Amino acid sequence: MHPLQKTAHLPKTHKAIVYPSPGSTPLKTAITTIPTPRPAPGEVLVRLTHSGVCSSDLGILTNSVGFPPTPENQVGGHEGVGHVVAFGESTADTALAGNLKIGDRVGIKWVSAICGCCMPCLSGRDALCEKVKVSGYVTPGTFQEYVIAPATYVTPIPEGLESEIAAPMLCGGLTVYSALRKSGAQAGDFVVIPGAGGGLGHLAVQIAARGMGLRVIGIDAGPKEEFVKSLGAEVFFDITKYSQDAEGSAKLAEDVKAATPRGAGAASVIVCVGSTAVYAQAIHFLGFGGSLVCVGLTKDLTVPIGGAFPNLMIAQELRILGSAVGNRKEAIEVLEMAARGVVKTHVTVEPMSKLTEVFEKLSKGQLHGRVVIDLGKE
Amino acid sequence: MHPLQKTAHLPKTHKAIVYPSPGSTPLKTAITTIPTPRPAPGEVLVRLTHSGVCSSDLGILTNSVGFPPTPENQVGGHEGVGHVVAFGESTADTALAGNLKIGDRVGIKWVSAICGCCMPCLSGRDALCEKVKVSGYVTPGTFQEYVIAPATYVTPIPEGLESEIAAPMLCGGLTVYSALRKSGAQAGDFVVIPGAGGGLGHLAVQIAARGMGLRVIGIDAGPKEEFVKSLGAEVFFDITKYSQDAEGSAKLAEDVKAATPRGAGAASVIVCVGSTAVYAQAIHFLGFGGSLVCVGLTKDLTVPIGGAFPNLMIAQELRILGSAVGNRKEAIEVLEMAARGVVKTHVTVEPMSKLTEVFEKLSKGQLHGRVVIDLGKE
Amino acid sequence: MHPLQKTAHLPKTHKAIVYPSPGSTPLKTAITTIPTPRPAPGEVLVRLTHSGVCSSDLGILTNSVGFPPTPENQVGGHEGVGHVVAFGESTADTALAGNLKIGDRVGIKWVSAICGCCMPCLSGRDALCEKVKVSGYVTPGTFQEYVIAPATYVTPIPEGLESEIAAPMLCGGLTVYSALRKSGAQAGDFVVIPGAGGGLGHLAVQIAARGMGLRVIGIDAGPKEEFVKSLGAEVFFDITKYSQDAEGSAKLAEDVKAATPRGAGAASVIVCVGSTAVYAQAIHFLGFGGSLVCVGLTKDLTVPIGGAFPNLMIAQELRILGSAVGNRKEAIEVLEMAARGVVKTHVTVEPMSKLTEVFEKLSKGQLHGRVVIDLGKE
Amino acid sequence: MHPLQKTAHLPKTHKAIVYPSPGSTPLKTAITTIPTPRPAPGEVLVRLTHSGVCSSDLGILTNSVGFPPTPENQVGGHEGVGHVVAFGESTADTALAGNLKIGDRVGIKWVSAICGCCMPCLSGRDALCEKVKVSGYVTPGTFQEYVIAPATYVTPIPEGLESEIAAPMLCGGLTVYSALRKSGAQAGDFVVIPGAGGGLGHLAVQIAARGMGLRVIGIDAGPKEEFVKSLGAEVFFDITKYSQDAEGSAKLAEDVKAATPRGAGAASVIVCVGSTAVYAQAIHFLGFGGSLVCVGLTKDLTVPIGGAFPNLMIAQELRILGSAVGNRKEAIEVLEMAARGVVKTHVTVEPMSKLTEVFEKLSKGQLHGRVVIDLGKE
Repeated sequence: MHPLQKTAHLPKTHKAIVYPSPGSTPLKTAITTIPTPRPAPGEVLVRLTHSGVCSSDLGILTNSVGFPPTPENQVGGHEGVGHVVAFGESTADTALAGNLKIGDRVGIKWVSAICGCCMPCLSGRDALCEKVKVSGYVTPGTFQEYVIAPATYVTPIPEGLESEIAAPMLCGGLTVYSALRKSGAQAGDFVVIPGAGGGLGHLAVQIAARGMGLRVIGIDAGPKEEFVKSLGAEVFFDITKYSQDAEGSAKLAEDVKAATPRGAGAASVIVCVGSTAVYAQAIHFLGFGGSLVCVGLTKDLTVPIGGAFPNLMIAQELRILGSAVGNRKEAIEVLEMAARGVVKTHVTVEPMSKLTEVFEKLSKGQLHGRVVIDLGKE
Repeated sequence: MHPLQKTAHLPKTHKAIVYPSPGSTPLKTAITTIPTPRPAPGEVLVRLTHSGVCSSDLGILTNSVGFPPTPENQVGGHEGVGHVVAFGESTADTALAGNLKIGDRVGIKWVSAICGCCMPCLSGRDALCEKVKVSGYVTPGTFQEYVIAPATYVTPIPEGLESEIAAPMLCGGLTVYSALRKSGAQAGDFVVIPGAGGGLGHLAVQIAARGMGLRVIGIDAGPKEEFVKSLGAEVFFDITKYSQDAEGSAKLAEDVKAATPRGAGAASVIVCVGSTAVYAQAIHFLGFGGSLVCVGLTKDLTVPIGGAFPNLMIAQELRILGSAVGNRKEAIEVLEMAARGVVKTHVTVEPMSKLTEVFEKLSKGQLHGRVVIDLGKE
Repeated sequence: MHPLQKTAHLPKTHKAIVYPSPGSTPLKTAITTIPTPRPAPGEVLVRLTHSGVCSSDLGILTNSVGFPPTPENQVGGHEGVGHVVAFGESTADTALAGNLKIGDRVGIKWVSAICGCCMPCLSGRDALCEKVKVSGYVTPGTFQEYVIAPATYVTPIPEGLESEIAAPMLCGGLTVYSALRKSGAQAGDFVVIPGAGGGLGHLAVQIAARGMGLRVIGIDAGPKEEFVKSLGAEVFFDITKYSQDAEGSAKLAEDVKAATPRGAGAASVIVCVGSTAVYAQAIHFLGFGGSLVCVGLTKDLTVPIGGAFPNLMIAQELRILGSAVGNRKEAIEVLEMAARGVVKTHVTVEPMSKLTEVFEKLSKGQLHGRVVIDLGKE
Repeated sequence: MHPLQKTAHLPKTHKAIVYPSPGSTPLKTAITTIPTPRPAPGEVLVRLTHSGVCSSDLGILTNSVGFPPTPENQVGGHEGVGHVVAFGESTADTALAGNLKIGDRVGIKWVSAICGCCMPCLSGRDALCEKVKVSGYVTPGTFQEYVIAPATYVTPIPEGLESEIAAPMLCGGLTVYSALRKSGAQAGDFVVIPGAGGGLGHLAVQIAARGMGLRVIGIDAGPKEEFVKSLGAEVFFDITKYSQDAEGSAKLAEDVKAATPRGAGAASVIVCVGSTAVYAQAIHFLGFGGSLVCVGLTKDLTVPIGGAFPNLMIAQELRILGSAVGNRKEAIEVLEMAARGVVKTHVTVEPMSKLTEVFEKLSKGQLHGRVVIDLGKE
């Protein structure tokens, strides 16, 4: 037996970052020491090395993703990468282990566990599983040194891909990749990415343009133009140059359409940002048969989607699609794209103690690219 | 040369029903005599025998489908069946004739002509053609004895199918068939048809249940229960038994879901009726991944679709789809269904002089099934 | 704890039908008493009541499905239905139990277990799992009173569906349903079912015609015409009326095409039978874009598919598709069709001692419909 | 009226290259002067400037594509680019003109005309039209100064794309683009292109790798490695390094699979070359669910596709697909890819008098990239 399989050798406690009082201001996280759990049959223990910081983590910390309030002292995080260090009893070398071995490098996603046999699971819609578990909200998350996960549900990380690059692909990359797949946009089609320079946006631009043969129109504030174009966007519109009213919105839609072949409009808009203003205008970027893909959750549960009127939908045969985070197969696919350098996360690595500060910057929209916490550094 | 090809033998004038003053009340139509046009190259002249009466005809007569006002003395109608009696010059026996011969029985649809080479045309989205012509609104319609049509765009009527049964399939049948196809619902799935006993609804129920292997939940007023079930609906909900408020709406959604396997909700709702109330509740009938298909045009152009909120769309990966009327291939397919008896239009045949009365009943929701005008009877 | 969960209450031994010497003639099976295994974590013990008899069972008994030789004393069978009587340790009430409870009625399929995390698994192709287990060949099968199965992989049997009807749906029904799905045939299209009156064929006819809105052309020997038509086939061709040479084959293809609209040919042929002669002619039944779906395994591994020539494939844009047995989602769907009476297996129930005789008849093509073994009767 | 519309201004004769004796050796073409035809209603006259030379032209010249013998003095060619110089009577400014104006630059494809209303046409399968016309075989082709074409069927050439680059896209580019679309391969998947350095192959590599986000394994003779990789192929196998027997073929299949993630095999093989040897081995490059797309016509009509055995097809759920040349929509899409520089045809431009020599080189496999005839130079 591999020594790491002997649970006697596992630590009794480890460091974790908790949210002492979710929903309160100012934002607060704390490093603490907690007991290291032992994996049950079917589970593995993962020694995490990195965890990305996603805006959904911020939402969970601030109780603003429309979920019931986050429990006190929740360990957050859902973009974790680490190595399998122990199997639960009766798991190693049995069917319960899936394809895993001790030492395998694996990832933990937003969806940390599924039942595997309900209709959403059997339809490849992991996030909609009737017994879905969410990392960093329902189950202890990846802002800690050790985490428990189902052996058959962790995501293998391809060789040669650095862990800090892999981490954000597990949520941000996966989410936009799945949305782009569902959009129905085909190679050669134009897709619009509002917030193209942001955490999700900058991944969406690259996956679309470099990974899927799509043509990208990025929208963001002017200073990000060069960055967004360097990611593969063919066209950029500076949102600050348009008035924030119906006229400005109409002008932007007109400009987007003019940038597409025959002025027809885009095949898809991927709304990664939970912005009411973006949802108000996105549908007007579309050409006939086009799709608006909803990805970004809004604080207010009942934000209307602009133009979601039967007559407009019918006249242009438009589509509005909701896309939750992707599934395991898509996770493997997007990590392969990252491993071969198609998608590069723009990452800043920070020690555990910086998480509060990172959340503050994130809440103010001051982050450029993605931050990853190094779980080996306090 | 076939005698009918000699334009000398064609009538100089024929009878047509016109709308003397669209938009005015009371509703008014008038039988009049107009010059019989001569087909240009690429066109045919069709001697019509029957034309269905569709609620869109009423909308065009009353200026209430959200289009620019209908011209005075417009000849309406877009569910016409008749025989080819003449080809335009250089058309017979040339490529311009497509597959047509004199005497062929053909249909005229809502879309009376397309350019055939714009991107929507090449995508099979006839109704979205950049140069689309609408019968009975842009071009003279089918409430007349003779009509002009492009030789390659008329719809062949299969042998053995009575013309009065075929007529309503060309618009109503085609529209719901195309919507059902686009819905993504698969054989064995449940679809909900609000207004199941109405003109479009009663066709949708049959096409879904008998033609496509779908399971149907019909919704309508109670007295229609027996009729709707006789068409193939497995479940019926009487809308009059639910209060017309949020509570009643929630209760109906709950009942719909309870009628589906595992209480999961329907795979699709086909909203054939342009009713604000129906659009307000339809999305709540759906299970995960389900689709709301918008078919019915509303009077007010900006009716919101209930629940078209990003968070709900994402949480259940729902889809909202706009579907205009179908294309030629779908028309051929749905007529084949009718020809083999899968779909039976419940038809009342009336002479030309009854059209005003028919429109009045239609506007009051007093029609049961579909009315077809016999263009051989004044 | 439910009493049945106490393994103390489980039997120590039970009756099973084994194949003493696979591959030898005459065919031989024997009822014997074997130790009842105890389920491991993640597994359940199922008390079987019925098991269908499939031609693949015969193939495994006779070493003729192209697999390595079947082990001596193999317990065969892969269409089992029974009740969960015990969970493995740490399984009940944990994530490993999926959605199961003691007492649930469940089915065991050809694929008895999958890893759940390889790429074929994540693509919904259970039969192609890299660690796939086959019931009655790799794992002890369903011709016995008790069988072990993974808790998350058994198939729930819908209420109201008799176990002897459910059993054959788990393999025969599932296989043809999955093939029909993959065929790409749409409601209203014609599909051809050679061997329409056989074990798989009679299920395919019903699922296609009554479950999926397809139009069916059945082919079989003449005496089966009435039976095949009673299942929903619209057209029947008596194979015995055609000469068994190229001319007869061409004539049959001509007749098949003539039976379809515009003489265009069928949208799909589902070859359920492992017959060289059928594979030789099937492609010629197809219209443009049509699909030949390979389902029936042939004894000889290198039987050519007639007409699988590049030029013919290109000229008509034909498709040849291999379809292994379906997955869990499809199993649930086809069982629902059976539960609502759309598909009726024509079943003869026999005691365990009759299995050898059943295999003999099966090998001579003398069975009508499907045989199910009652595992409560010796 | 635009002066060019006056047919009086059109030439009475023009130069054309004819095949005096198709099927004879040595290969022979001759420049001759023929009467310039006048377009009928619905047609246009196009002044051609360039025509690509395709191996199908060679096949038509040599009677070796499996069609009935080519007529004597046939004008060949089907990759033509030029400008509209005249409309037929009643065509300009009518519906028959589609979207065309005098002076528009347009392309003529392999399929020169379709009926536009048969089921294959309505399914977007232009090449399968029941009245399809083939340029350079049925209708006078593009190896001449002037050609007649249906106004609604010519392909618009996007601005900024040089005519000599556009020409080969109209057949070679379109054919491989359509095949890649039909293959079902998704962005990130591996496709294998045998003959990667050839006329079709070098286009397929670029469209796949640069246009569609696919990963390409090119196979060809060693000296082409650098060229093929410069087009975007990630992996190259030198066919000359493998023995031309079963062992060599198995070794190549093994190497191809080893180059793909998890050694799983490719998602698709696009067989552009009509080579018996390539068809014999291609299926063995595939992973589960993979597709072999037949594009290249073979001289012998009954070349078997290696491995097209039911058992293999079923075990891996493989697919074999025939793909004829693409349709108008696909032509527009692939030309857009060319216009934005994604695909670059490697073109040598030659005067009309060199056509025989070009065919000779083509028949010996001595051409690198594609040859285009300049129809302005004799």
